[in-house]
Amino acid sequence: MTHFPPWPAPCLGVCYYPEHWPAARWAQDARDMAALGLRVVRLGEFAWSRLEPSPGQWDWAWFDKAIETLAAEGLRLVLGTPTATPPKWLVDRLPQILAVDAQGRPRRFGSRRHYDFSSPEYLQEARRVTQAVAARYGQHPAVVAWQTDNEYGCHDTVQSFSESAVRRFREWLRQRHGDIDALNAAWGTAFWGQTYRSFDEIDAPVGTVTEAHPAHRLDWRRFASDEVVRFNRAQVDLIRAHSPGRAVLHNTMLFFAEFDHYRLAQDLDLVGWDSYPLGALENFWFDAVTKARWLQTGHPDFAAFHHDLYRGMSRLPFWVMEQQPGPVNWGHWNPAPAAGMVRLWTWEALAHGADVVSYFRWRQLPFGQEQCHAGLHTPDGTLDTGGREAAEVARELGQVDLESVQAAPVALLLDYESLWSIEIQPQGASEHGLRRCFEAYSALRSLGLDVDIAGPETSLAAARLIVLPAQAIVGEALASALLRAVQRGARVVLYPRAGSRTGDLQTPPALPPGPLQQLIDLRVLGVESLRPGVSRPVALPWGMGYVEQWQERVEPGRRVEVEASDAQGRAVVLRSGHVTYLAGVLDAASQRQLLAQRAREAGLGPLALPDGLRLRRRGSQVFAFNYDAQLHTVPGPEVRWQLGGAEVPPHGVAIGLLAEPGGKDAPLNATNHA
Amino acid sequence: MTHFPPWPAPCLGVCYYPEHWPAARWAQDARDMAALGLRVVRLGEFAWSRLEPSPGQWDWAWFDKAIETLAAEGLRLVLGTPTATPPKWLVDRLPQILAVDAQGRPRRFGSRRHYDFSSPEYLQEARRVTQAVAARYGQHPAVVAWQTDNEYGCHDTVQSFSESAVRRFREWLRQRHGDIDALNAAWGTAFWGQTYRSFDEIDAPVGTVTEAHPAHRLDWRRFASDEVVRFNRAQVDLIRAHSPGRAVLHNTMLFFAEFDHYRLAQDLDLVGWDSYPLGALENFWFDAVTKARWLQTGHPDFAAFHHDLYRGMSRLPFWVMEQQPGPVNWGHWNPAPAAGMVRLWTWEALAHGADVVSYFRWRQLPFGQEQCHAGLHTPDGTLDTGGREAAEVARELGQVDLESVQAAPVALLLDYESLWSIEIQPQGASEHGLRRCFEAYSALRSLGLDVDIAGPETSLAAARLIVLPAQAIVGEALASALLRAVQRGARVVLYPRAGSRTGDLQTPPALPPGPLQQLIDLRVLGVESLRPGVSRPVALPWGMGYVEQWQERVEPGRRVEVEASDAQGRAVVLRSGHVTYLAGVLDAASQRQLLAQRAREAGLGPLALPDGLRLRRRGSQVFAFNYDAQLHTVPGPEVRWQLGGAEVPPHGVAIGLLAEPGGKDAPLNATNHA
Amino acid sequence: MTHFPPWPAPCLGVCYYPEHWPAARWAQDARDMAALGLRVVRLGEFAWSRLEPSPGQWDWAWFDKAIETLAAEGLRLVLGTPTATPPKWLVDRLPQILAVDAQGRPRRFGSRRHYDFSSPEYLQEARRVTQAVAARYGQHPAVVAWQTDNEYGCHDTVQSFSESAVRRFREWLRQRHGDIDALNAAWGTAFWGQTYRSFDEIDAPVGTVTEAHPAHRLDWRRFASDEVVRFNRAQVDLIRAHSPGRAVLHNTMLFFAEFDHYRLAQDLDLVGWDSYPLGALENFWFDAVTKARWLQTGHPDFAAFHHDLYRGMSRLPFWVMEQQPGPVNWGHWNPAPAAGMVRLWTWEALAHGADVVSYFRWRQLPFGQEQCHAGLHTPDGTLDTGGREAAEVARELGQVDLESVQAAPVALLLDYESLWSIEIQPQGASEHGLRRCFEAYSALRSLGLDVDIAGPETSLAAARLIVLPAQAIVGEALASALLRAVQRGARVVLYPRAGSRTGDLQTPPALPPGPLQQLIDLRVLGVESLRPGVSRPVALPWGMGYVEQWQERVEPGRRVEVEASDAQGRAVVLRSGHVTYLAGVLDAASQRQLLAQRAREAGLGPLALPDGLRLRRRGSQVFAFNYDAQLHTVPGPEVRWQLGGAEVPPHGVAIGLLAEPGGKDAPLNATNHA
Repeated sequence: MTHFPPWPAPCLGVCYYPEHWPAARWAQDARDMAALGLRVVRLGEFAWSRLEPSPGQWDWAWFDKAIETLAAEGLRLVLGTPTATPPKWLVDRLPQILAVDAQGRPRRFGSRRHYDFSSPEYLQEARRVTQAVAARYGQHPAVVAWQTDNEYGCHDTVQSFSESAVRRFREWLRQRHGDIDALNAAWGTAFWGQTYRSFDEIDAPVGTVTEAHPAHRLDWRRFASDEVVRFNRAQVDLIRAHSPGRAVLHNTMLFFAEFDHYRLAQDLDLVGWDSYPLGALENFWFDAVTKARWLQTGHPDFAAFHHDLYRGMSRLPFWVMEQQPGPVNWGHWNPAPAAGMVRLWTWEALAHGADVVSYFRWRQLPFGQEQCHAGLHTPDGTLDTGGREAAEVARELGQVDLESVQAAPVALLLDYESLWSIEIQPQGASEHGLRRCFEAYSALRSLGLDVDIAGPETSLAAARLIVLPAQAIVGEALASALLRAVQRGARVVLYPRAGSRTGDLQTPPALPPGPLQQLIDLRVLGVESLRPGVSRPVALPWGMGYVEQWQERVEPGRRVEVEASDAQGRAVVLRSGHVTYLAGVLDAASQRQLLAQRAREAGLGPLALPDGLRLRRRGSQVFAFNYDAQLHTVPGPEVRWQLGGAEVPPHGVAIGLLAEPGGKDAPLNATNHA
Repeated sequence: MTHFPPWPAPCLGVCYYPEHWPAARWAQDARDMAALGLRVVRLGEFAWSRLEPSPGQWDWAWFDKAIETLAAEGLRLVLGTPTATPPKWLVDRLPQILAVDAQGRPRRFGSRRHYDFSSPEYLQEARRVTQAVAARYGQHPAVVAWQTDNEYGCHDTVQSFSESAVRRFREWLRQRHGDIDALNAAWGTAFWGQTYRSFDEIDAPVGTVTEAHPAHRLDWRRFASDEVVRFNRAQVDLIRAHSPGRAVLHNTMLFFAEFDHYRLAQDLDLVGWDSYPLGALENFWFDAVTKARWLQTGHPDFAAFHHDLYRGMSRLPFWVMEQQPGPVNWGHWNPAPAAGMVRLWTWEALAHGADVVSYFRWRQLPFGQEQCHAGLHTPDGTLDTGGREAAEVARELGQVDLESVQAAPVALLLDYESLWSIEIQPQGASEHGLRRCFEAYSALRSLGLDVDIAGPETSLAAARLIVLPAQAIVGEALASALLRAVQRGARVVLYPRAGSRTGDLQTPPALPPGPLQQLIDLRVLGVESLRPGVSRPVALPWGMGYVEQWQERVEPGRRVEVEASDAQGRAVVLRSGHVTYLAGVLDAASQRQLLAQRAREAGLGPLALPDGLRLRRRGSQVFAFNYDAQLHTVPGPEVRWQLGGAEVPPHGVAIGLLAEPGGKDAPLNATNHA
Repeated sequence: MTHFPPWPAPCLGVCYYPEHWPAARWAQDARDMAALGLRVVRLGEFAWSRLEPSPGQWDWAWFDKAIETLAAEGLRLVLGTPTATPPKWLVDRLPQILAVDAQGRPRRFGSRRHYDFSSPEYLQEARRVTQAVAARYGQHPAVVAWQTDNEYGCHDTVQSFSESAVRRFREWLRQRHGDIDALNAAWGTAFWGQTYRSFDEIDAPVGTVTEAHPAHRLDWRRFASDEVVRFNRAQVDLIRAHSPGRAVLHNTMLFFAEFDHYRLAQDLDLVGWDSYPLGALENFWFDAVTKARWLQTGHPDFAAFHHDLYRGMSRLPFWVMEQQPGPVNWGHWNPAPAAGMVRLWTWEALAHGADVVSYFRWRQLPFGQEQCHAGLHTPDGTLDTGGREAAEVARELGQVDLESVQAAPVALLLDYESLWSIEIQPQGASEHGLRRCFEAYSALRSLGLDVDIAGPETSLAAARLIVLPAQAIVGEALASALLRAVQRGARVVLYPRAGSRTGDLQTPPALPPGPLQQLIDLRVLGVESLRPGVSRPVALPWGMGYVEQWQERVEPGRRVEVEASDAQGRAVVLRSGHVTYLAGVLDAASQRQLLAQRAREAGLGPLALPDGLRLRRRGSQVFAFNYDAQLHTVPGPEVRWQLGGAEVPPHGVAIGLLAEPGGKDAPLNATNHA
């Protein structure tokens, strides 16, 4: 990290838009930021139309001044390339840069992200503006990092169905498959007479009478993902050339899997993400009871899930690039965070390894689409709740030294291609790979376990328990890595659908779980998806449980033990040594108990945490977060508290050092095991 | 009113379509109308293709004969300009007259209202046909009024996204903002790089990747509304020129706010509206319990709400241009009115000041889209239930003299721009300005109070209680008018969101309620929208209540008293002398109690009416309407009954004179106060 | 039937796709089919791109070999014309063959059924490929039948809104109406000024501002249906010319009424249909409780309903062309059939008169859109549950001789034009003609009665009870046929809406039930549709019942008896001798009791069958099917059992001979009557 201009990590930051406010106000804003304890400021990512108000006419003066004003207060700057919002004049001159929706309509100017990743004209324009900005500010001493574009894919913008995209897709297919016969074989176009004679006959898989070919759709999704990566890389290359020694990051999104984030991350120095716990709770899959339960806190595992996901793919410590400071404007409904939650979310990010937590935004805007999105200040400049809590964390940060982050004992696999394959062929309307990953993660976290989220190429060397909640596509490399992990003593839990598809979205010749048959000798003969409300009793070792949503009919091999079956005698939990295969989706409580049992086998100390309490470690340092509206006591007395104590108040935080450090994954209290 | 050919007001009328029936039947129909007691007939509003069957080939003979036949029975005629249904030959010759939907598709011939308000070609055609009809029949002695077009905006037709519309929008913007810098500043286009260099760069706010700019959308809505007003005015001018001394009206719609009806009304002599209580109940926001409760009556406040709304903007007494006489064809489900309801609805319209109540239609049609819409007769000519009840009212009208209508003691503000602003930026999926107006109105009506619905420019001189349920946009003029009302002793109740936006859809610089801070010294620091099912207890002076849907965080000034707070200590009901600010939406019962309390303070006598009983006064005359399926007694014995009595049967009507008239707003019975 | 190459009826078959598997595997597959007891194989219906891989380049060799391989094992072949999947090269050469959707977008290549029935270019291409295939294989001794295309209308493909279709529609209208004035009069275009001056002015009834004219829509639906029939007939003619002595069939679909199947059937030798009981239950109108109740069996009346419908229109005994053998891929959720259900479904088809029951498909595919659709084997070739049950039926078939099928004593009318008319003008969101037919059918079947489903032109000579659940359009011929049936003693039950519309979708001049007034002298003065949850008590002869969904206000003539009325005194059940008119939709239990009562009057012996048990006769042979998960006893001891016995196990089958044959419709047990 020494080759980067230093930012005082860990620290707090803020997103700021000088173009929204009179220049006369900037200096006071900068002083206030510094006084509040903020150290990093992001700016510029939507400013193209102000930097180049007319074609080729650059107006740098105002931005120069904004940068100098902030730098004068010692603030470190993250500059955004402004490519998420091409100006109206550019759209009018080059209408072919507009993305095209699935209905064939060009998407229009008037909000953001209207460009087409596959447009050669736009790529050139994006390079031009990136080059201009990077050349001008690349070596500015206050500039410590760059953010490429903004939230790739937001508002359903990964895929474009333009002629440019189709042309590039054909070329992409040619690269992948070599010749058309290979493609026909790989996809299985013999079905429904879908054979192609040349790559030029292939269109986007859209507008078909019924569903398009699944292999066609999967390749299209891969292609669209690669287009994002390529677009980003073009900016990264220019920034690296003009701004040596600065970090390059992108701010990724919550519950978003439209492109392969592992591939994007490979070109970045670090991954930032935008954390909006309340909007996420409201707009995603949670049921009404859950939404009411965590109305003003967000789901207790929401932020941690993303911290662990993006930490896993980030070379340098990840950032929270945008942290919700109050109500947002984009939830179906938008409640306010409970008192204390902005502080809690900030500390939680740091506990999971964030280097910078940056609030969005400095001051609520009085105009535009986001005028109901809270900031650290109200539109008239009054310091708001979020601002006060940010200041509190800034003060507390000076009091607590953070230990370094170590690998977690549990690895949970999350793979974008697998998620796409389930989305393309769900085989049941409730199937949702990302949700299944999140629910398994939540079960593990409610046991007090630290989790690393891993991609199919991530090293599993440190993991003692490995969980694959939605790994539909398993290549030989991953199968081998899992086998090696098992051989060195790790436990592996395979959920239904694991290994059920090849990379071309075919059923493996020897049936699922395909290459995972090296780990456990069984064949999945058939699958059932079950409508909500249907649940089938299963006799589990510790009592009665239920299969819901999905059940498989499995033929176990000789060395496979059936640990639990349903009333019809169908095997539901199968194991072969360290490897467990779930032939059905268990109810939440049973899922949690099974994972607890496997964690104990792996030598971990799962805990029965009270609802809403969560733990996380950095070295021998333990953090407790209470999402609940009532006080909870951290199980176990052997902690030397640095901030707060064992009795964590509602929406409160506690930080301490393990008195008898048994390693990062040791139980806090052996008497309170799940 | 003397310059108009007299119609015998109040009286009953009917809508009649001679083009649907053999000419041989017209004379008998006319005789039957007169015999039934009907005095006014509307005709002609869809007859273009019969009046001009081919371009320039007019066929007047049949219409001449229809008019003479009706006039011969002494019936007064309302002629409709037939512009709602341009003929197929016109559409084929001038396809550019078709409106364009939000997807960019021209709307097609084959139903009605397919034209574009912004098409210069259609405006010319509409003038041509209006001129022809007005010139021919303008001075006919039987013609007493004209209806322009039919139900402007029905079937989502106010907005067209055509090139004509965009061209005119740009010109409209130039008129409003003067120069492009002013527009950029007024809208706040600095956000997301939406700056424009010229008016010609601006499109319709549609098809954007995520929501378009709110100020852009509000101006677009204003423009679309102005286009309706302009289109209408062109017809009014021609009619006035050719048909002096006749009233010009338009038939407006129920629960419809797509254009600014106050502006349309300024060009008219009187406002008619189309009353379909059962279809409205079924197709609008009411919950399933409410829909079942009032299945065959409609909501007890539905018709009154519209009577009071359109009366308020009508220069001459308003009309019910179309009154539901039986089941309609367009509700999701279509039950029949309970026995007595057609009579009740008719009397209720008269009680609220209608001059004419005209049934739709004379006889149910056996063909076409509306063949399941009942008439006063069945398709074979049998007098139907609605017809019998109409005849009953016609007889009763001869027995009861109606007193004149006076200003009501309660004013409720309803402002179209505010409704649009809430629709554009709801900030919560349940937010619905018109619904909030209706629910406040309903609470007031259930207290037995008479209500005038007022626009932002309506005089508030007579009001003793003024309620602003959804007045998001408050200009200085309105704020001053309210201040004057308070100074002369009126009570003002401000609901959440009052004054929360400027006319350019920005947050006021000193925060909401903006100009209303002159009335009550407080600042709204933040807002929350709450999902259904979330309710927060509030200690109200008279007991426990709840905040639902919406809550604000308010900082009260020094002279502001907090009358009620929630469990977290947040102020919910604040008052400053006569002015009350609600910082949250109260549950229905609490809302009703608060309004009752304020009404008492204002010297009004709110009543606790039984569910479904409603009262209305004309001078010292009191009308009681029982929407319920059981008998209810009008509270208070001091009425001299003219029709019916204090015990109002199910779906019945009673009319009487207050024995001790204490003014139009005096309580009927002081012992029965709410 | 002797002029056809014999197939060993009744027998089992299978759908097979040699193009999906290596040629090396075909011989073993053929041997396995024969060994399993299958006798008939369908193939070729999606093979165009393999038979003609490039324009005019035919590749017959592989298909020759597949046919010879199958024939060598004695299998009889059904060849499909491959017109459901025109190849990509054809779409690229002739893009005008693509159908156009209601939004005006050409439907795209990449699944199936993308062609336009009205495209002259496609008709020519379809003829070309049909001619080529029929000429090559028409006289092959193994070929016993041809299937035209595949599942006409699947994926909403009956209607195309292309220019070709509109051009042909105008010509169709000219043929139907003769001159434009006749059309204007027949449709009633006087409404809303929809008059046309020439046929060339008429478009497809789509894209209108509000609903298009109902008569316009009905003629459009008729036209679209006729286009399917015409397209099919072109293939039939070519097949008949090239392949004399072979049966021509089409495989129709479940719960599908987009074209007039009676008319299609007139050109065929026999009707096949595709039976998917579990997908149908999940994706159609059944409520959640019903879907959970029959989750793994399908609704007990689903398959029988279609058997009886398609048997009624099939000249030779009908086939089940595709029988579900396991989970499908296209339900919202896809459970597996309960053990025994594949056998039950197969026997049930045979009991209802099927000649061939053919499973879809031989082996589950590992690729393509349907890779989760089960086959008789799993993708790796293991014999699956469905395969084992098929083999069981094949064995049992050798043990039981089937008696011949006779006319049923109950006729239920199902008329496509009536269904369309209700869909076009439902007048209530719950109205669904096909559902009403199915529910009446289900009531009759739960009484143990055999039912023939009849079209408006089907002979009713054998029926003793005739039920018209949704016969909105009644012509003079049908009215006369019903009158004759009554005169010879049959009972007729008319449901609401019977005879409510003329063929031009007008209300009959003398009001509904129009021509049925010859059967029962009454007039329907008005109708109500009722939202779910609204039910009105009715005093029925045997106790209290309810009107739900729909109620009519009826004026009975002199000789009409009112058998039951509601609380307001409105007649609900009216009768005139043998004819009953229901003026409201009765709740399911009351409907069943009323039909039981009428069946008894007709001399039939309705039974109170336990829930899930169903009976069916062939001559004196009785079949019992137990859809329930618990054992049920067939009422009555007088059966000599051939397979199973009176105690039918869960999901079991029993077959026996009536010991005291009282005719096909005699009760099994007089003591157990409903």
